[in-house]
Amino acid sequence: MKLRFLLPVCVLAFTALLLAQTTPPALVLPEVPYPDGFRRWAHVSSAIVSAKMGEAGAPPKEAPHGQIHNLYANELALEGYRTGHFPEGAVLIADWFILEETRGGLKQGPRKSVDVMIRDARRVETGGWGFENFDQDSRTKRNAGPKSVTSCFECHRRAGPEREFVFSTLLP
Amino acid sequence: MKLRFLLPVCVLAFTALLLAQTTPPALVLPEVPYPDGFRRWAHVSSAIVSAKMGEAGAPPKEAPHGQIHNLYANELALEGYRTGHFPEGAVLIADWFILEETRGGLKQGPRKSVDVMIRDARRVETGGWGFENFDQDSRTKRNAGPKSVTSCFECHRRAGPEREFVFSTLLP
Repeated sequence: MKLRFLLPVCVLAFTALLLAQTTPPALVLPEVPYPDGFRRWAHVSSAIVSAKMGEAGAPPKEAPHGQIHNLYANELALEGYRTGHFPEGAVLIADWFILEETRGGLKQGPRKSVDVMIRDARRVETGGWGFENFDQDSRTKRNAGPKSVTSCFECHRRAGPEREFVFSTLLP
Repeated sequence: MKLRFLLPVCVLAFTALLLAQTTPPALVLPEVPYPDGFRRWAHVSSAIVSAKMGEAGAPPKEAPHGQIHNLYANELALEGYRTGHFPEGAVLIADWFILEETRGGLKQGPRKSVDVMIRDARRVETGGWGFENFDQDSRTKRNAGPKSVTSCFECHRRAGPEREFVFSTLLP
């Protein structure tokens, strides 16, 4: 009687053990960390994204004058710009601000987001980079998260593998 | 005969000596130095100056999309932003670029100038700051020089003595 139960249990346990050994454990990657102190990193360049006109030809209420992003690089990312190869841990930041009208021009208004791109070879789906978008001045509210393949990498993919999916160059 | 010549010579020499002691020597201030390595200093903020339309309502050929300036501060200038008092040697840079059209926005084109503002109490005429404008990528071609009272300080004066003639604030 006992043996009739023990046999299928053993077979199941053995199968489970076999599966556990052949199927690699699902890789749970840590979240992309908030880039502490990035405002003192090297400034790479700045660029403006114009306001996208709505259906009625009106500028968006949120940012009628468009947005500016200031790019920053940590020391490892600077090495990447120099050599063409971004080492593990290289971090690039796009610090986005809504543009506001000022006398004769435009100035930085409220922060829109802090976009992070961190070199991490484990993240093969997104070109060996981790992406995140921290909302406004928040260090915890994440807008990209697991969606980063579509929301970040689908665009960065266009920069091409030969540029390691980085659009920017370090301006002199 | 000899004495008749010697006396006026002595009087002249004595007068000259007296003048030399009472009139301070004309203060020849050194030129404002080129700010070596400023591209790795802290980035303060960026702002855009729109293209000024000409008489015929046409944008200027040189910069039809306006210009951007990226502001940088050395360590002493960062102290100035924090405390409200810019110590001697504090340097602020406005790195000017002509804006160029890109897909959906504007990006930094060629450098227009590197504007320098250095804290120097001796320069009383210009609010205790030395000003210079280095042309494009040149470290030697100076556009402000002795004209800096009118070309730089006349505008910075408007920021007011309570702000020590600094317009910008250090953005978070």
